[in-house]
Amino acid sequence: MYIRNEDTICAPATVPGTGAISVIRVSGPDALAVADKVVTTRRGRISDAPGYTIRFGTVYSAPKGNASGPGDAIDEVLVSVFRAPHSYTGEDSVEISCHASSYIVSAVLDMLLVAGARAAEPGEFTQRAFLNGKMDLAQAEAVADVIASQNADAHRVAFRQMKGGFSSELRSMRSELLEIVSLMELELDFSEEEVEFADRSRLDSLLAEIIAHVGRLVDSFRLGNAIKNGVPVTIAGATNTGKSTLLNALLGEDRAIVSDIHGTTRDTIEEMLNIDGVLFRFIDTAGLRETSEVVEQIGIGRTFRKISEASVVIGMVDLTRDFESSCETVREIVKNVDLDIQNLVFLLNKTDILGINKNVNILNFIVSFVESKDIKVNVFDKTEISPQIVGAVRNSVSILPISAKTGSGIPALRSLLAASQRDLLADSDTTLVTNQRHVQALAEARTSLLRVREGLAAGLPTDLAAQDIREAIYHIGSIVGEISTDEVLGNIFANFCIGK
Amino acid sequence: MYIRNEDTICAPATVPGTGAISVIRVSGPDALAVADKVVTTRRGRISDAPGYTIRFGTVYSAPKGNASGPGDAIDEVLVSVFRAPHSYTGEDSVEISCHASSYIVSAVLDMLLVAGARAAEPGEFTQRAFLNGKMDLAQAEAVADVIASQNADAHRVAFRQMKGGFSSELRSMRSELLEIVSLMELELDFSEEEVEFADRSRLDSLLAEIIAHVGRLVDSFRLGNAIKNGVPVTIAGATNTGKSTLLNALLGEDRAIVSDIHGTTRDTIEEMLNIDGVLFRFIDTAGLRETSEVVEQIGIGRTFRKISEASVVIGMVDLTRDFESSCETVREIVKNVDLDIQNLVFLLNKTDILGINKNVNILNFIVSFVESKDIKVNVFDKTEISPQIVGAVRNSVSILPISAKTGSGIPALRSLLAASQRDLLADSDTTLVTNQRHVQALAEARTSLLRVREGLAAGLPTDLAAQDIREAIYHIGSIVGEISTDEVLGNIFANFCIGK
Repeated sequence: MYIRNEDTICAPATVPGTGAISVIRVSGPDALAVADKVVTTRRGRISDAPGYTIRFGTVYSAPKGNASGPGDAIDEVLVSVFRAPHSYTGEDSVEISCHASSYIVSAVLDMLLVAGARAAEPGEFTQRAFLNGKMDLAQAEAVADVIASQNADAHRVAFRQMKGGFSSELRSMRSELLEIVSLMELELDFSEEEVEFADRSRLDSLLAEIIAHVGRLVDSFRLGNAIKNGVPVTIAGATNTGKSTLLNALLGEDRAIVSDIHGTTRDTIEEMLNIDGVLFRFIDTAGLRETSEVVEQIGIGRTFRKISEASVVIGMVDLTRDFESSCETVREIVKNVDLDIQNLVFLLNKTDILGINKNVNILNFIVSFVESKDIKVNVFDKTEISPQIVGAVRNSVSILPISAKTGSGIPALRSLLAASQRDLLADSDTTLVTNQRHVQALAEARTSLLRVREGLAAGLPTDLAAQDIREAIYHIGSIVGEISTDEVLGNIFANFCIGK
Repeated sequence: MYIRNEDTICAPATVPGTGAISVIRVSGPDALAVADKVVTTRRGRISDAPGYTIRFGTVYSAPKGNASGPGDAIDEVLVSVFRAPHSYTGEDSVEISCHASSYIVSAVLDMLLVAGARAAEPGEFTQRAFLNGKMDLAQAEAVADVIASQNADAHRVAFRQMKGGFSSELRSMRSELLEIVSLMELELDFSEEEVEFADRSRLDSLLAEIIAHVGRLVDSFRLGNAIKNGVPVTIAGATNTGKSTLLNALLGEDRAIVSDIHGTTRDTIEEMLNIDGVLFRFIDTAGLRETSEVVEQIGIGRTFRKISEASVVIGMVDLTRDFESSCETVREIVKNVDLDIQNLVFLLNKTDILGINKNVNILNFIVSFVESKDIKVNVFDKTEISPQIVGAVRNSVSILPISAKTGSGIPALRSLLAASQRDLLADSDTTLVTNQRHVQALAEARTSLLRVREGLAAGLPTDLAAQDIREAIYHIGSIVGEISTDEVLGNIFANFCIGK
């Protein structure tokens, strides 16, 4: 599908628009020769310049008609010279810095094409960096994440992955598995002699360790994805309990700082909101159901899934509603939330219509129902909440009376949400998986390894186990690109912007 | 108003958005020291790097809390080093090339501010280039025009000015005037001795030459402005003759390529259209008048001015209208157009309702009325027009039957418009004035010089003439910035984008 490194590619590396300068990248075996043809310098040829130096020159248009010599001057440019392998792509490269006019950029690109370069595909520079061994596939994918990152946490996770932190973990895991499998295969070779090279109990504990590691990485996707795409907050509850009003109240004046994360596909009922530097992604389950009544339907399909995917679940209870149906809502929500990995906040809405004091039954019901399940409950009043509540909102259910309509209690809710994520996100030293492709590969690897362990315990033949380990190795290797097909590469790099 | 070169400034030089890379500029006496503080390199300090070289390094965030040492890595960057005076600004400068994430750009800028740089004002880099003598004022202004230029002609004119072509013409004119005035003043010093250093007739012919030169530059503004801001085409005629429909028909599918020229303020009835690579600016005079009837009002105020400013005037005649009022429209328009510098096209509109054969009277009237003024007339039919009509549309009135509603005749009109400008724009070797400030200064200079010539002819005292020449020198000097006030500078550079 891709021609490897045989031709020279070019593309603008900066966004089109009226800035001060634009940068055009050229990379490939003829990059310097192409630059020589396009840029006229006063002192010597660009192809004679050492790497990591800059040359000043002029780009001329093609001669007009039958005239000889160059045409009009298009621009004066600075050319940064990089020599293989000391460049982003690992190939000879130049970066041409010109005035940021769309006319100039396209005129310079035209001249580069005339000189023998071709227009780069999206992501092709980074793909070349991968193909030339400058970075592995996980690192290459992280380049796009680094560019798309809009807050400190997302940036830190992506940057760490780009620098190879994740990859080196995977590599050491992979080489451990390779060692195990080679011992097993050695055993198979000598099977008639009944030799056991691999110590079974040592093998089992080694496998258990690797499975735990893979499991931790799979589990980290919840947080990694939250950081990359926003902490998912699902607003659940019967219809007409004020979920949309709540969303609007939360967005409020901050609507301007709502972020649009590049590459995130989201349906119309998701809204992004930055609270205290943390990006939250609010998922309103309203509209997910066909009929408007029916608390019983709360658990149906998509709502269930939205609840299970959430890091924070907001249960909306309408103080003006029928007591029994509210209780049913509470029971359904509590049943579907896993407090080990999720936060749960019940909002008692519409205090503007019916004060909490006038409807203390539902509050009491929630408290007793939750406590009956041996879960701690924190009831907050509607004043500001201090940052010290971080502990209180973990592994417990929070209850907060609010009025989505008047905004009463909304600042407290924002404090609760920020507090629920504070320490989680601050932990920068463990690896977080942020990529759907990676977490799928890891989950497959885990399945294979669990099968190995069970098989060995059940006394199944070593050759089956060895094959399962090979499978796990394959999946782990696919993440960094030890094994990759043109199709996989095409999919990955097609999502990049041109010039990267 | 501006502190000159004492502090170090920084700003992004590329447009914000998701590209591959972003570039941040730093310039000033401490630029290299600031870069040393912000970028950690593996090999030596940036301030030890020679000019025109590149260093690879890492930008770290500030240490967290009471921790010592750097914080998290923000990005790996390339730093281009430029040393005074061999830089854009003439000062020590660096350009930091980082990944194009808005988070990274603002984090790097934060670190630059912490290290002692300050955020640059719009245009401040170019202003410093001017203050440090790297370019004169006319060249500095052309930088913004080069960036804004969206087609080959606009770019060529702006680039030529940026390279100093215009400035050197002005400089030689100015030094000629300085020589004249110093001879005159010498004469004054020796006035009691009745010496005449300056040969009067030689002086007069020299002045005539300079006046002609200035006049040619003033006149070039019509074309220069057309190239920079679009060739102005005024659509004149009574209301409801189909002017808006014509505009829509012309824009048609090309609406997508309508250009928005940076810095052009235009009212809502102006539309830009690119025809054969030439930018046209259509000015619909509809809505300029209060009352809707009244052909007599056609000449009123703003419509008059729009007609006089146009390079091409389109006279709209409605075939379905009363003959006499159409004749009146034709007379008014012909009266107000100067065919030496303007093109005039009469469109006989609404052929879909009333074929031209059924209303040949108005056609005959226009032909005979125009010919009665010794002006040539070309009547085009509505088929495609070949490019050979360039000569035919110059210094003559064109007549074209159309239907703005069905689009009949519109391709022919486009050919006519393109032909009307073809050779004019191709002439690249004369200087064109494109800047309102410049043309005003030149007009002032011309006025002063004409006064000198008249005064000398009338035998007025030499000292008055000398003063007028000084005034002309002042105006010419103000264009390149030999004379400039902080206020003028402020106005000029405030229109630049940040980072330029």
